Amino acid sequence: MAYDQDNIFAKILRGEMPCHKIYEDTNTFAFLDIMPRADGHTLIIPKSPSRNLLDASDGDLATTIAVVKTIGRAAMTAFDAPGLLVQQFNEAEAGQIVFHLHFHILPRHDGVPLRPPGQMGDNDVLVIHAEKIRAALAMS
Amino acid sequence: MAYDQDNIFAKILRGEMPCHKIYEDTNTFAFLDIMPRADGHTLIIPKSPSRNLLDASDGDLATTIAVVKTIGRAAMTAFDAPGLLVQQFNEAEAGQIVFHLHFHILPRHDGVPLRPPGQMGDNDVLVIHAEKIRAALAMS
Repeated sequence: MAYDQDNIFAKILRGEMPCHKIYEDTNTFAFLDIMPRADGHTLIIPKSPSRNLLDASDGDLATTIAVVKTIGRAAMTAFDAPGLLVQQFNEAEAGQIVFHLHFHILPRHDGVPLRPPGQMGDNDVLVIHAEKIRAALAMS
Repeated sequence: MAYDQDNIFAKILRGEMPCHKIYEDTNTFAFLDIMPRADGHTLIIPKSPSRNLLDASDGDLATTIAVVKTIGRAAMTAFDAPGLLVQQFNEAEAGQIVFHLHFHILPRHDGVPLRPPGQMGDNDVLVIHAEKIRAALAMS
C-alpha cells in the first residue's frame, strides 16, 4: 500500500499541524496522542515515510523502538506508573487510523482501565502532561 | 526488577518446555501463543535475558523488532489477514504475565473480534497453524 504524504503525522513532521511535542532527534519524533486512552499516552514515529511496521526499514524500526524504550521509561516516571503498554496497529483491520508508522505507549496503573478510544483530551491538560514527560526525560 | 531464569520462556529457550516453534536465529526465537486471541497469534522474543522492553538492550530490541516484521508479514499471508496487531506488555499492571520480553503479533480480519484472554488453544489446531506460518515464511 502507498504512503500518503498528506497524512496527519506527515503534516505534524512538516510543521503544518500543531502537536504536543515530547522529543525529537535526527530520525525520530514523539508527541502526545490527542485522544489519550491513559494519561501520558504518547506516539513515537520515525521521520522517514513508512505506512506502518510492515514497510518500514529495519534501520527505522531499530531507532524508533529504542526511543519507545526511552520515552516509555520517562512517561512511567512522569505518571508514577508501574506498567507500560506498547501497541502498534497495521492497517485499518488492526485499528490503524493514521497511515504513518507509530508506536503507542500508555502508562498503566493497577485497576485503572483504558479510556474508550476516540475521546478528545483537554488541551490544557495535554500541555501539562507533555511538560511532565519532557521534565522526566530531561532528568533521565 | 530482576530477571527470573525459571520463567516459562526461558525454559522454552533451554528446551525444557515444548512449544509450537515458528522461527529461530542467533538472537531471536518465535513460537505460537498457546492461548491465541486470534489465529496465528505468535510471540517473538530475544534469546538474551531481559524482563521486558524497559531493561532490554537497544541491540536486542533492534533484532527482535526486525523479526516481528518478518514473522508478522508471514502470519498475515498464512491467514490471509489484511491487518496485524502488535502488542507488548511491560509489568503486571500492563498485562505482562511471563517476565521475559515478548512481542505479540495477531493477524486481524475486519469484524472478527479478538478472543478473550486466557483461553487455551486446541493443540492439533496449533500444530496446523504453526505449519501454515512456517510455510508462508519459507515462501517469503
